Amino acid sequence: MKEIISEIIELRKNAEVAYVGSVNEAGFPQIKCMLVPEHESMKIHYFSTNTSSKRAGQFLKNPKACVYYCDETNFAGALFTGTMEVCTDHETKAMIWRDGDEMYYPKGVDDEDYCVFKFTAETVNYYHDLSNVTLPIDQL
Amino acid sequence: MKEIISEIIELRKNAEVAYVGSVNEAGFPQIKCMLVPEHESMKIHYFSTNTSSKRAGQFLKNPKACVYYCDETNFAGALFTGTMEVCTDHETKAMIWRDGDEMYYPKGVDDEDYCVFKFTAETVNYYHDLSNVTLPIDQL
Repeated sequence: MKEIISEIIELRKNAEVAYVGSVNEAGFPQIKCMLVPEHESMKIHYFSTNTSSKRAGQFLKNPKACVYYCDETNFAGALFTGTMEVCTDHETKAMIWRDGDEMYYPKGVDDEDYCVFKFTAETVNYYHDLSNVTLPIDQL
Repeated sequence: MKEIISEIIELRKNAEVAYVGSVNEAGFPQIKCMLVPEHESMKIHYFSTNTSSKRAGQFLKNPKACVYYCDETNFAGALFTGTMEVCTDHETKAMIWRDGDEMYYPKGVDDEDYCVFKFTAETVNYYHDLSNVTLPIDQL
């Protein structure tokens, strides 16, 4: 189990992108590949995007979410399930802001079209080869 | 528009893997990376998996689905939204069966733990750089 937990942590820590899942108004799942701007915690995962995006609108209406980190070549994946908060406060936005983001948000950190997704995981499902396990996030 | 359509077709045709989205019983989106065994149609997409898998159980209860093909390096993605059928008939299973599948399904095509996901798309959302368009599938 210790080995599995370290594999999950490594997958999240080394990920450049994650696949973020939402549910749209008609009840259909939706997926978007997003850059991973930080790798701190297993429970809280941040992403940044446009406040005007479809995804932000979906999460405001339905916070149910998942975040999937995948190692295609080794047939391993960690699927975190939880809820997504759309943050527009200065503090969170400043924390996730990266050099170069002004290319997308010309007004800077306080650009009203820049927001941060704050994902809080409840469980993680991890598979690798034939092993497949679901853990409460507090066990990591 | 012609160029966008050919980019969508190319993304689907060249994909080795796709990200398949479902909604679990608690209403949370779920994602799984799956190998793409065929690249024929824009409307119908097939995948193979274990009949006993979580995903198969989810689609039997709730057929709402999406299939996402992503080109991470070029910031392009095609998100197909539609419904998923879990096929256990010999004809469909034989059509999708590939050499080497007996490693996973020792009883062969008619192994009861081998099934085929048949996804039927209704729409596709495609983004690349700053363009973002949603089309009915029959327009492709």
